[in-house]
Amino acid sequence: MSFRLTILGSSSAKPAFGRFTTSQYLDTESEAFLIDAGEGLQIQLNKYRLKPNRISHIFISHLHGDHILGLPGFLTSLNLNSRTKALKVFSPPGLKNWFNSYLSISESALLYPIEFIELNEDKDKGFKIYSSDQIEVTAFPVIHRVSTFGFRFDQKKDDFNIDPKAITKYSLTIDEIKSIKSGMDLIREGKRISFEELVLPKKKNVSYAFCTDSVYSLDYIDAVKGVDLLYHEATYLKDLELQAKERMHCTAQQAGIIAKKANVKKLIIGHYSCRYRDLAPLLSEVREEFESSFLAMEGEEHIIKSI
Amino acid sequence: MSFRLTILGSSSAKPAFGRFTTSQYLDTESEAFLIDAGEGLQIQLNKYRLKPNRISHIFISHLHGDHILGLPGFLTSLNLNSRTKALKVFSPPGLKNWFNSYLSISESALLYPIEFIELNEDKDKGFKIYSSDQIEVTAFPVIHRVSTFGFRFDQKKDDFNIDPKAITKYSLTIDEIKSIKSGMDLIREGKRISFEELVLPKKKNVSYAFCTDSVYSLDYIDAVKGVDLLYHEATYLKDLELQAKERMHCTAQQAGIIAKKANVKKLIIGHYSCRYRDLAPLLSEVREEFESSFLAMEGEEHIIKSI
Repeated sequence: MSFRLTILGSSSAKPAFGRFTTSQYLDTESEAFLIDAGEGLQIQLNKYRLKPNRISHIFISHLHGDHILGLPGFLTSLNLNSRTKALKVFSPPGLKNWFNSYLSISESALLYPIEFIELNEDKDKGFKIYSSDQIEVTAFPVIHRVSTFGFRFDQKKDDFNIDPKAITKYSLTIDEIKSIKSGMDLIREGKRISFEELVLPKKKNVSYAFCTDSVYSLDYIDAVKGVDLLYHEATYLKDLELQAKERMHCTAQQAGIIAKKANVKKLIIGHYSCRYRDLAPLLSEVREEFESSFLAMEGEEHIIKSI
Repeated sequence: MSFRLTILGSSSAKPAFGRFTTSQYLDTESEAFLIDAGEGLQIQLNKYRLKPNRISHIFISHLHGDHILGLPGFLTSLNLNSRTKALKVFSPPGLKNWFNSYLSISESALLYPIEFIELNEDKDKGFKIYSSDQIEVTAFPVIHRVSTFGFRFDQKKDDFNIDPKAITKYSLTIDEIKSIKSGMDLIREGKRISFEELVLPKKKNVSYAFCTDSVYSLDYIDAVKGVDLLYHEATYLKDLELQAKERMHCTAQQAGIIAKKANVKKLIIGHYSCRYRDLAPLLSEVREEFESSFLAMEGEEHIIKSI
């Protein structure tokens, strides 16, 4: 399995220098997820030829405008595209009422089923919000001026795959294969053959975590621990650390420290303040803390493969 | 005086082929107006280097998503730009409540004064909604699935300008100049000198009218009569005239007929259906009816000068 993450917007607060506000498209092979919904996200999906109709779930971190204002247009356009497939939207409370007030003034309705699921901020640890055969999504609180959540996407552990050579060697029956896949040993002529000799080495499961907006905190390190890819906001350079704290955002340095402490494989920073036309200083700063860091850039794809 | 109109979006219903949904920036020299507010309008304002803070009034034709979804982001960004100047928004009823519900869920507030003015659909003729020293704006109902208005922008008639030669020749006093400017003759040594001999020829006042979305109708011909520039929706080609009628839109041919009947100088068509990648057939069709027709294109500026 692989995750393909496409950055649709990297700007904080408002669009600037051709950068859009926060939105991401995560394709997990089995289905796609939309993470945050900044204004113009449907324009970006068109531009990068991503498929809106593959999106099964939307995860909204918080209800500030730069993370939600693209949602009504996106949901309306799915309607115009004759979507029939159900859609679920996870967010802090309030989104459904606002969206319904839009449907009301525009005298319109959606023709596909939509469900808004509210995330409760009283949970202080990660909690599972979605699980399919292949994917598990966890929400966890981060710390901002309004109720805000990060999200972690994990490929589920597969069953073991039988080594084709073992099938031939032992003429395995279907029942035996099922039993070995679930981790049971094989008994042949009174002799026990360990299941580990019969299966292929398990591939590593892929994982991605998304954290925006938050003041610097170690409270959610556990929630993002060890992921293959972490997206973390880095609104400011460290010379504005005080301002970052007041406005409940992070510096590039702080994002790097979090990545290091959480022992992630790769970090992408984004949610850049509109004061920065040139992003190179943010990249230099974060790489001082965490070498495997990259800048979120509109249209760029980050692929994580299970190996 | 001149009007400079910049097209920010020309697509109907949803963004397509790099085209944004409806929005226009009209700079009248004394102030700027925003007409409709499709998603991404603030991205377009940035791109074409137009000044958001010059906008004093916003005119919203109707409350369908493709005409309003850029409004919350635009109003919020004015706040981030430290705007203090008051802003007025004209629209059919409902916009204020929807915008306030956004402020409520995002736990934010505007720091500049904003006033929402509701247009009543029970008026069947044009009615003045704004007047300054230099500009007059009229709203008039057009015919769509929801309450919808067109807008006409007229430069006000100037006072006469005194011919500098007359000032020297007759050694005019300030009181005499004031009197001549208002159209009074000059009396010198018992002789009447007609004011027309003392003033410069009056320049023609500029005018612009905006009509979207509407089914084909002659009801608003009077309201747009004789304007220098008319923007009119032309969602479909004439082979889809029946569909246009059902969905309460116009064909390019019908937009051309309206321009001809209203005796306008120049027509721009827009609000193209997403089915048309190539717009050339729409242009050919409208020009069969009205030669001086042009396609609305993102970023293109149309200048009307008083001559």
